[in-house]
Amino acid sequence: MPSPTAESKRGANSADCIFCNPGREILAENEHALAFFDSYPVSQGHALVVPRRHALTIFELAAEEYAACFRLVFPLRELLLARFAPDGFNVGANCGAAAGQSVWHAHIHVIPRYTGDVPDPRGGVRGVIPYRSSYQGTPTMGT
Amino acid sequence: MPSPTAESKRGANSADCIFCNPGREILAENEHALAFFDSYPVSQGHALVVPRRHALTIFELAAEEYAACFRLVFPLRELLLARFAPDGFNVGANCGAAAGQSVWHAHIHVIPRYTGDVPDPRGGVRGVIPYRSSYQGTPTMGT
Repeated sequence: MPSPTAESKRGANSADCIFCNPGREILAENEHALAFFDSYPVSQGHALVVPRRHALTIFELAAEEYAACFRLVFPLRELLLARFAPDGFNVGANCGAAAGQSVWHAHIHVIPRYTGDVPDPRGGVRGVIPYRSSYQGTPTMGT
Repeated sequence: MPSPTAESKRGANSADCIFCNPGREILAENEHALAFFDSYPVSQGHALVVPRRHALTIFELAAEEYAACFRLVFPLRELLLARFAPDGFNVGANCGAAAGQSVWHAHIHVIPRYTGDVPDPRGGVRGVIPYRSSYQGTPTMGT
């Protein structure tokens, strides 16, 4: 993963960071984390959990902040269930440009899923590498 | 999300569950969680964190078990960095059939990413809904 120093050049600091200054409804919060809707939702109710402190990826968080971010997924899910009645959820984070991250403040996607929203949902977050997400071929036991 | 009762019919219990009986190298572990390689890796080093206790999704875990699972992602990442030197990571869980889950024991994917492994990595876990993962159109602020 590129170093924090390298990726910090991508324009993010607490003053100009859109997740430090979300400017939108806060759906849930705790001591170290906030949740709000994604500005480019891939499904109805697509939301994000972000740490209050500006940090590049979830791996640069202190243990307590990291735990608080993932803990906040629980009440956020309850809220999304009550509001949108989805059939499932994907929960995930992109860490580093190679992993598809493009906002340089750590965030966890909480993506409500609805039966039939894609033709074949199998694989879910495996789809980060699309051509290998559908279990083709022989299991290799890892590497 | 389908009820645990409905999805428990999908064949998973502790005796016949492949994640209760992984039968492969344990990469990292703590009181409540284990990590091992995925049998159908989408990238070199693709690994999983699973709770020791058989539970259908991460949302059926006790708070302590859930926290322990996400905590184990840290040492697992260190090990994968040392062994494979990836450039980034996707971390994510599929919760429910509608979200692409197909093994009925909760698990968190830890997917090492390598610069150039897909033509355009942008979006990452957003790719669970492929046709909306590339930020087309106008931001809608959530719903």
